[in-house]
This record gives sequence, structure tokens and C-alpha cells, in this order.
Amino acid sequence: MTQHRPSQAELTAFLQAEFPQNRCTLEELDEVDGSVVVAHPVGESELRPGGTVSGPVMMTLADVALYIAILARIGIVPLAVTTNLAINFLRKPRADRRVVARCRLMKLGRSLAVGEVWIFSEGEEEPVAHATGTYSIPKAS
Amino acid sequence: MTQHRPSQAELTAFLQAEFPQNRCTLEELDEVDGSVVVAHPVGESELRPGGTVSGPVMMTLADVALYIAILARIGIVPLAVTTNLAINFLRKPRADRRVVARCRLMKLGRSLAVGEVWIFSEGEEEPVAHATGTYSIPKAS
Amino acid sequence: MTQHRPSQAELTAFLQAEFPQNRCTLEELDEVDGSVVVAHPVGESELRPGGTVSGPVMMTLADVALYIAILARIGIVPLAVTTNLAINFLRKPRADRRVVARCRLMKLGRSLAVGEVWIFSEGEEEPVAHATGTYSIPKAS
Amino acid sequence: MTQHRPSQAELTAFLQAEFPQNRCTLEELDEVDGSVVVAHPVGESELRPGGTVSGPVMMTLADVALYIAILARIGIVPLAVTTNLAINFLRKPRADRRVVARCRLMKLGRSLAVGEVWIFSEGEEEPVAHATGTYSIPKAS
Repeated sequence: MTQHRPSQAELTAFLQAEFPQNRCTLEELDEVDGSVVVAHPVGESELRPGGTVSGPVMMTLADVALYIAILARIGIVPLAVTTNLAINFLRKPRADRRVVARCRLMKLGRSLAVGEVWIFSEGEEEPVAHATGTYSIPKAS
Repeated sequence: MTQHRPSQAELTAFLQAEFPQNRCTLEELDEVDGSVVVAHPVGESELRPGGTVSGPVMMTLADVALYIAILARIGIVPLAVTTNLAINFLRKPRADRRVVARCRLMKLGRSLAVGEVWIFSEGEEEPVAHATGTYSIPKAS
Repeated sequence: MTQHRPSQAELTAFLQAEFPQNRCTLEELDEVDGSVVVAHPVGESELRPGGTVSGPVMMTLADVALYIAILARIGIVPLAVTTNLAINFLRKPRADRRVVARCRLMKLGRSLAVGEVWIFSEGEEEPVAHATGTYSIPKAS
Repeated sequence: MTQHRPSQAELTAFLQAEFPQNRCTLEELDEVDGSVVVAHPVGESELRPGGTVSGPVMMTLADVALYIAILARIGIVPLAVTTNLAINFLRKPRADRRVVARCRLMKLGRSLAVGEVWIFSEGEEEPVAHATGTYSIPKAS
């Protein structure tokens, strides 16, 4: 917990290096409450019949947002792993906007971190999905 | 519920048409209990630091397996949508094997279907993840 | 959705009639955002070894808070049923305070309502648990 | 993990001592696969309008079944605590039968145990609910 808190630029560099195929981008890092905003573009490959953004795109976004929110607090510890994630899909996202996740940690313990993620179509008020997830934090050695 | 039950070939064709970017393949369709087996290859783009298959790959696999298990029972109704999905990650998957999901429905109602998914590294006995999910089924018109 | 929105007194009367064994009380009903606050006393019978409020007490509280939040919006429809509930336990509640839940709906559709519940030891700032749940709403006849 | 594995009688005695208000009873303890069967009576106080067994009764049963399944494997360690629990309600339980839960662990790690619980109306084939939950196991000292 005494680790260096990484900057937005450091987290972005880590995200690009660790997840080169991943299209999520870190948009905001709130140094006060530790919340993060992560976005994912929506194009042909993210859409399903009926013009819905696919569930896996939103699950990926939730997982990445949670991961980044944790790293923002504990420092870049690449071996943190998800232990569970639960997502509710609330509304049909827009096909012509990015999906944007805001994640805030509910608990940051020594071995477990639990966070909440709200997902929106960019610029819209009503959430399209809500997720909670737990990460297991490796022991500092 | 009186719809034509699609064959494995029909479901495969639908999967390829609907999710062209998706790399999941339908491996088995048990006509007796309605369970399905769906696989996802594991290569460089599915791995994370430490050689772990990424969580989103397993969430995608769980979601697709659930979707296919439902379509196998109610017929190809592309507008069924996930309402929630909860996944527990249990063990580190192998980096050199496909991940394989077996999904069975726990409930198939008129408006909601609920299923359970077990995910394995191919050929291994111990599960790497377990998911449950609910799909909302559009009213027949 | 055009039903009469019940008052706090009407909801309290319903709660007492429907759940006579239930010890939850409706403390607040926010007519603007529709959130509700529900409390549960903590005594010998709610405690477990180590002085922790038992998980089932908090699950009961979450379920009742969600139910009341829905009834506050759609009118008193006793046949609404929970379809799923997921809870994360975050911190040890205090043994000498009531547990208090604040519930807000994330979605109120025609057939499904989804809500979020934060649970606190009364007067404390950090939440002790967080739950999300879905209720199925019977068709108006 | 090297602790004494308690017998059914020892677990029953512990359950009665620890949860005197709790009406769950341990019915079976499978020494081979470690699964446990726990039952809860259904009477006036467990029913809700429409003759449904209340959700909190089933959540309590799931939580207790999971706890007992863990204690059956690691020995009686009263400070194990639930970190999360997710339940899907599948069918209306019968008003005239006990509810019975079968729990099996999916993972038993050093710090986390994850289990699955199927709940039935006694003597019926179709499950009425399914839950998964995680317990945090205190470090041996």
C-alpha cells in the first residue's frame, strides 16, 4: 500500500504494453476519490444483431476499468487477478457512441479489492450496465 | 417454444454469421439434456502477464455458450439479450490449451432463461471458471 | 406503471402485514429519486462468532429494501418476486448499531426491475455490504 | 488444511451452538466429494404472499450450506466469513415441503473457498434456486 501511485500516463503506457489487442483507453484518473474512467470504441466489430453493443465488450470494459482503478491505488502490480465479476445489463447502448465506464473501489483490503463500475453510452445520462468485481491482490514480497 | 430446434450445423452457421469476429466454435450439442460445448482458442492475444488466459476471453466464452444453449432450445431468435452474468474465476487456465465451456440451462421460462457454464482448459479435470447468466427472451409475435 | 404510488405509511403497513416476522423498518422514502432507506435491528440473534452481524441478516435487509423500492414506484403488487440477488460483504458491521440499507433502482422496466443497495452500520461512513438484485414484475391484468 | 475433519455430529453440535436461532439442520456429509446437504423447515414464518418460501430463507440456507461445506473440509474455524454470494431463484418452492440445499466446493484455496449450492423443495427434481458464494478463510496462526 506504500507503493508509488502511478500517473495517468504511466497507467496508459502499462495498458498498451500489457493489453496490446485491447482497445480500452484510460480517459480520467481522479486523484481524490481514486475513480477512473475508461472508454471503448464501438464499431462494426462491437455490434450484434439489432445494433446492440455486445455483452463481452461491456464485460471487458468493466474488467479493465476495475483493474486500472486498483493499479491506480496500489501501484502497477501486473499479477492482480479477477476472482469474480457480476454484471447487470440495463439498457441498450447506442450503436454510434463509445461505451464509457466509471469505476470506484468499494473496498481495498490487503488481499482483496472490490469495485463498482457504471457503464454509459458516451454523453448519455442513463447507465447501460452496472458491474461489481473482486480482484485478488498478490502478497508483496 | 414450438419452434424448430436447430441442428449443430445451423447453430454454427448462425454463430459465424452473427459474430464474425468471434472465435468461439460449437463443439457439441447434446440433444437429450440440451447442453452445449463451446471452445475458444488460446493464443498470444488471449494471454495476460503470467501466462493467464484473460478474464474477458472466459466471459465471452460463457456468454456465447449460454446464448447457444438457449438458441438450441428455443430456435434461432437473434434478439435474446443477456440481462446478467456472474463469473467466478477458480484456477489459472493453461496457456497452451483451448478453453472449453459446457453450458446447461437451469431454467427455461417464457421470458427468462437461466444457465450455468463450467469452463475448463481442454483435457483438464478441474474447472478454471464457473458462470451463471440470465437471458431475456423476446416475446414471439 | 400508472398505479398509485404508496406513501411511507402505506408501505410500512404492508410490510408489517406481509412480513410479520420480519424486523425491517422503512425509515425514509425519497419521493424525488425513489430511493428508500430500510433498517434492521442488531441484537444477540443477529450476531455471529466474532461479533459480526450475520450475512443472512444483511441479505434479508437487501432483499426487503429492493422490494420496498420497487413497490414505492409501481404500487403495492405483492407478487413481485426476486429473480436474483448478488451481495458483496465489504467490512465487519458494528455489533452495537442497527444495519441500514439505502436502495435505489437502476432500471424499472415493464417486466424487470434492477436495483442497487448499500448497507451501513448506522451512523458510519464506510459501507459494510453492497448488493444488486433483480425482481420480476407480474403483468398487470 | 491439515486440521481434523469434523464428523457430521461435530458439525451439527457446532451449528446448534453457533446459530441457536438458525433452523438449518445438517442432513448429509459426503466424505468422498465433501458435499453437504442442509435442510430448513418451511412453516408460516417462511412463507410469503402467494405461498412462496421467502428469498431470505433460501439465502440463509445457501450461506449456511456453504459454511458447513467449508468447515467440513478445513475443520471448525468459526471466523471464516462470506465475501460474496449470488443467488438465482428458478422456480416457486412448495409451501408444504422443507427446502434442502446440496453444496459442493468448486475451489478450496489457502485464502478463498468457492462453492456452489443447489436448492430443492424436498423430494422434487427441479431445483428452486442456485447459488454460488465465496468465503474468506482466516490465516492459520
